Formats: sequence, C-alpha cells, structure tokens
Amino acid sequence: MLAAQYVAGYGIEVAEVAPRPPGPGEVQVEVAYVGICGTDLHILAGHMDERIADHGVIGHEMSGRVAATGEGVTGWSPGDPVTVMPLRWCGQCPTCRAGNEHICDHLDFVGIDSPGAMQQRWTVPQELLVPLPGALSLRAAALVEPVAVAHHDVVRASLSPGESALVIGGGPIGVLIAVVARTRAAEVLLVEPDPYRRSVASGLGIDVLDSGSEDLTGALDAWSGGAGAAVTFEVSGTQAGLDLAVAALGARGRLVAVGIHAEPRRVDMRRVFWKELQLLGARVYERADFTAAVELLERGSVPVDAIVSRVDVLAQAPAAFDSLARGGRVMKVLVDCGAAGGSA
Amino acid sequence: MLAAQYVAGYGIEVAEVAPRPPGPGEVQVEVAYVGICGTDLHILAGHMDERIADHGVIGHEMSGRVAATGEGVTGWSPGDPVTVMPLRWCGQCPTCRAGNEHICDHLDFVGIDSPGAMQQRWTVPQELLVPLPGALSLRAAALVEPVAVAHHDVVRASLSPGESALVIGGGPIGVLIAVVARTRAAEVLLVEPDPYRRSVASGLGIDVLDSGSEDLTGALDAWSGGAGAAVTFEVSGTQAGLDLAVAALGARGRLVAVGIHAEPRRVDMRRVFWKELQLLGARVYERADFTAAVELLERGSVPVDAIVSRVDVLAQAPAAFDSLARGGRVMKVLVDCGAAGGSA
Ligand SMILES: [Zn+2]
Ligand SMILES: [Zn+2]
Ligand SMILES: [Zn+2]
Ligand SMILES: [Zn+2]
Repeated sequence: MLAAQYVAGYGIEVAEVAPRPPGPGEVQVEVAYVGICGTDLHILAGHMDERIADHGVIGHEMSGRVAATGEGVTGWSPGDPVTVMPLRWCGQCPTCRAGNEHICDHLDFVGIDSPGAMQQRWTVPQELLVPLPGALSLRAAALVEPVAVAHHDVVRASLSPGESALVIGGGPIGVLIAVVARTRAAEVLLVEPDPYRRSVASGLGIDVLDSGSEDLTGALDAWSGGAGAAVTFEVSGTQAGLDLAVAALGARGRLVAVGIHAEPRRVDMRRVFWKELQLLGARVYERADFTAAVELLERGSVPVDAIVSRVDVLAQAPAAFDSLARGGRVMKVLVDCGAAGGSA
Repeated sequence: MLAAQYVAGYGIEVAEVAPRPPGPGEVQVEVAYVGICGTDLHILAGHMDERIADHGVIGHEMSGRVAATGEGVTGWSPGDPVTVMPLRWCGQCPTCRAGNEHICDHLDFVGIDSPGAMQQRWTVPQELLVPLPGALSLRAAALVEPVAVAHHDVVRASLSPGESALVIGGGPIGVLIAVVARTRAAEVLLVEPDPYRRSVASGLGIDVLDSGSEDLTGALDAWSGGAGAAVTFEVSGTQAGLDLAVAALGARGRLVAVGIHAEPRRVDMRRVFWKELQLLGARVYERADFTAAVELLERGSVPVDAIVSRVDVLAQAPAAFDSLARGGRVMKVLVDCGAAGGSA
C-alpha cells in the first residue's frame, strides 16, 4: 500500500509500505480522506524534527472505514465509518489526574509524535475511534478534527447568544470558529488580510474586515457600538493579531489564544488589569468537542464545499502539500487515500 | 480643620481648610484613620498629575463616623461608624450597563479623580457609605479597602479549598491576598525579595520564599508536587514577577493580574496556549467585596497589628508618606485624622 512519509530535509515522499495488522485492542482503518493542516506545513519546514520520526507518516485529520479488528476489540465491524481523535494520554500525570487528559504532560499527538493517517490503511488503538453517522459523507467527515478545534475554542470562550465575537485570522480554523460561533447566535466579525480568504468567508455570509484597513479601530468601534468585543479569537499567531485581540475587547472581555506564538509576545497587561480582561489558552479538543463536531457536520452547519478547496489522490500528496505551502487561493486541501472509492 | 493636600512638584502639604457642609444626598464623615497605599506614592511621584487636581486631598482607605447628613439622607445618624467605597460610576456606559460598574468607562476613583479622605471632615455621596459593626475598631476598619482588593482578587481566581496559590509580591496587598486565600483553605506560598516583608508574612504563618533564591523553580516544583500552581497572583507589577506567574502555573492554571504594569510585558503566549492557562485582570472591587472585607475584619481573620506598621497624626502626614516612600521595615502606614480620639 501507499503511505505519505515526512523525510527530513526533503519533504513528502509517497512510498510503498506494508500495512500494519491490528494487534490486541487495535483497529485497522481503511483511510478515505486526510486533511492537511498548518501543523503539517510546520513539520515539512523542519520545525518539528524533535517530535516527528524521519520517514514518519503524517496526517491527523481524517475519515475512513474499519477494515479489520484486533484481538479483544468489540463494538466495531469492518465497513463502519469512523474518524480518529488523534490524542493519546498517559493517565498518570498531574494534568491527566486533574481531568485535563487532552493536554496531558506527555501527550502523544498522533500524526506527529506517532504515525499518522496519510496511508491507505492505518492501525490505531480502538479508544481513538469516533463513530460517524452513515449519512455523513467521508469527505465532509475529514473536517471533524478542525471543527472540533473550533468547537473547543468557542467552548473555552463561554460564548453566549448575542455576544460579539471577533475572529482574527481567516484560514480554515478562523472560518470554522466563525461558523461554530454563529451556530451559538453570536455576532461574528472576521478580520483577515488576504482577499481570497475574505471572499470565502463573506461568501458564507460572515461579516469580514480587511486587517489592513485604514480605520480598523473605527470600524470595530462601530461594529461593537463602542462597547468593544465580548470575545476575540486570536488565530493569526502574530504580534499584530494579538495586539488587536487585546485592544478590541470591552470590559471583562475574553481573548481565546488559538494561534501558536513561537516567541514571547508583548501584551498590554495594564489594559488586561484595567478592563479586567481574560486571556484563555485553547489547545486541541476534548472528546465532547469531537462528538459535537460530528453533529455540526451531520446537521449541515459546516459549509464543507466552500472550505475544501482541493482534493488530491495519495500518490499526488506532494503536490497537495505544495499547493498549500504556496498559499494563494486555497483553504483546506484533502488527500484522497482511496477508501471512499472516489464516490463519497 | 486640617487636610493633607497633594501639591504638584512639591509633595504633601497639611493645610487649614474649611470643611464642606453636606449637600442634598451627601454625608459628612468625621475621619478616623486613612491608610496610605502604593497608588498614593505614585501620585506623590507626579505620575498621576493628569487625574489629580493640584492641592487635591488624597486618601481612599479610611474609617470614620457620620458627623452630619444633608437633605434627603435617610438611614444614617451622627456617630454611626462607617467606611467609604471610593468608587463613583456613570451608570450609562456599556461597562456599567453590563453590570461591571466598578470598572465603569468613566470611573471616578475618589481620592484621585475627586477629593479624598485625608482630612478631618470629609463629605461624600451617601451611596458610597458602608456601615461598620460597632465592635470593629476604627483602626482595623481602615484596612477594609485593601482587604476588599484582596477579596476581589481571590474571587476572580475562583479559588477552591485545597488549591495551591502562589502570591508574587509581599507588600500589604500580597500579604492580604495570602490571608484571604488562607480563609478559603488554599495552600498558599508567598514569594518576595525583601527580608522584612518575608518576616512579616512568615510571622503570620504564611509560607514564604525568597524570589532571589538560587533554585526557585526547584523549590516551587517541590511545593506543588510537580503539578504547578493552580493559581498565581501577580502583585509585583514587574516583568520578572509576571514571568514567574506564567511559568509557575500548572495546566489550566489561573493567573490573576493585580500589579500594575506601566509598559507592555513579554508574555509566553505559547505556554498560555500549551497549558490552556487563564490570565485574569483584577481591578478594585465590587460592593460584595467590601461587605466581605468588613466581615473578615470583624471575625478577626485579618492580622491588623502585623500589617499596620505605623500611625502618624494628620499634622505629620508628610512624615507618614516619607516613611513609606523610603521603604525598609514598613508595611501599612495609617494617618490618624482624629475621630477615633486616639482610643480605638
Ligand atoms: Zn491540525
Ligand atoms: Zn498525562
Ligand atoms: Zn489603594
Ligand atoms: Zn459607566
């Protein structure tokens, strides 16, 4: 079978490998679609060589069907549509013991720290499987993981109906946060510099603003009626995005830190104090976010076709990564690993 | 009567002035004790000349007795022991309308933005008065305001019994936060560079650590059993204090920003994200914090004698300010304005 491997110093190589049969408690999944995410591009750029194995298989956003089950596995049968929640925790550390397993001190993020989904057959521990409704297309189901991220972010914000939510950064996660926030009847505004990404969001009926606009502050003031935003989602990972996320909040506003800031950032702590702001980190998701994401997709609340810009077959995985790395008119790129039979 | 006024470019001057009779809805208070706070030292240093009037009377931590009531005032009689919650809000701005009057967009902090307590008779709107129990000494009651600050900070942290709380900075507010946190059965540790302040705190049975210790990280790890703190209170207002407050937290830990950071600070936002931390600004207090502070003092939960280092009569107010500005072996300094008759 084929597998897309990360080769340090080179990039993505699609190689012929033998599928790993499921051991006790494991399930082998026939993979349908795998989404490529920003983290995968970081891997390609060599930023994560300390975590990922050379020739490791990447991919952590996926859909597929059960192909075979190992000894002691119950409740799963070949053909069952599934996705995988790509987290494995230790269960022993203080973080796990406090009930925060999803950010375990020794978290194994599957697809980085251990082999990922971008192969025709993928063997994982059964407890990672999440069942999919039969009516949900496997193509749509490839978005469960990023929708779960967005759902987790919105839950961290404790977003209430009618509250104003400013999303800073209009890539797939930013747009999905806007989409999920909208299902909670929030007043959503998305700020993004790239015209293509703005056009995708506004095509979905999301209010957008160019982060490079001359009078951004004035426009935000008008939007919030002078009250400032109740919630800001910082998805850009930039200093400018963080500055805006702090400045745009009203009294007791909540900033959800979603983007990854590789270096320490300047934060106006005086404003945090003065306005009694709240800054909240939000990382990955919990099981409940995965379940909620499946439901949102099943209900049709997520505009899958607008978000998926392109699908490449597994043999063409390097081209799929390239299209994303080059930027331009692209949001989410999927790799078709075959299990959907080109039909779903 | 005498009043201690801030004279720009000079310092504190005690002058003879006429008391202001209470107008409609106002109450004239015979002032007993007024505490000096860090903010008052900032005023003296000329940092707040945009807010305070030249020859303005300062002071916002006080106790006293009702002296006279204006037209339409009901429920107050001469001799009633009182303190003042020194906040006036507009009631109209988005912050007030959202129920956060204590951080009103146009907040009048009495004793800075309008005349304060350090005078023999002080006239204030009746709605600022907070009744004191007859059994509480007026000397102890001068601490109601800073205890309310500490109570507000602990409430912002949602501190639960058994949780670990690291207090960074051992001045009066830091020590009071430690005291209030202890009444909630938190496991409190206080970090402070000054040996005198450490000795005051440890004399109260609070565990203390020198912020300059060689292996501070190791000591904090041992204290939290490797889990990191559940809550950190950043009271120092310094970059080093903030760094420690972020670094010392365990997963989902809460940092309460109490100290004032005059300039933007570097914050490890990657750690905020990675550990899903929460940074919370905490400013002044709400009415409920004032009521709780009175109760804590009445119950004897606050070690007043250990915290009050010195009391000067009003005529000697400049010396009281000097003693605090010089630093050294001093925590809270009170100015005796006479109403307690030197007895309470
Ligand atoms: Zn991802
Ligand atoms: Zn763990
Ligand atoms: Zn004060
Ligand atoms: Zn107001």
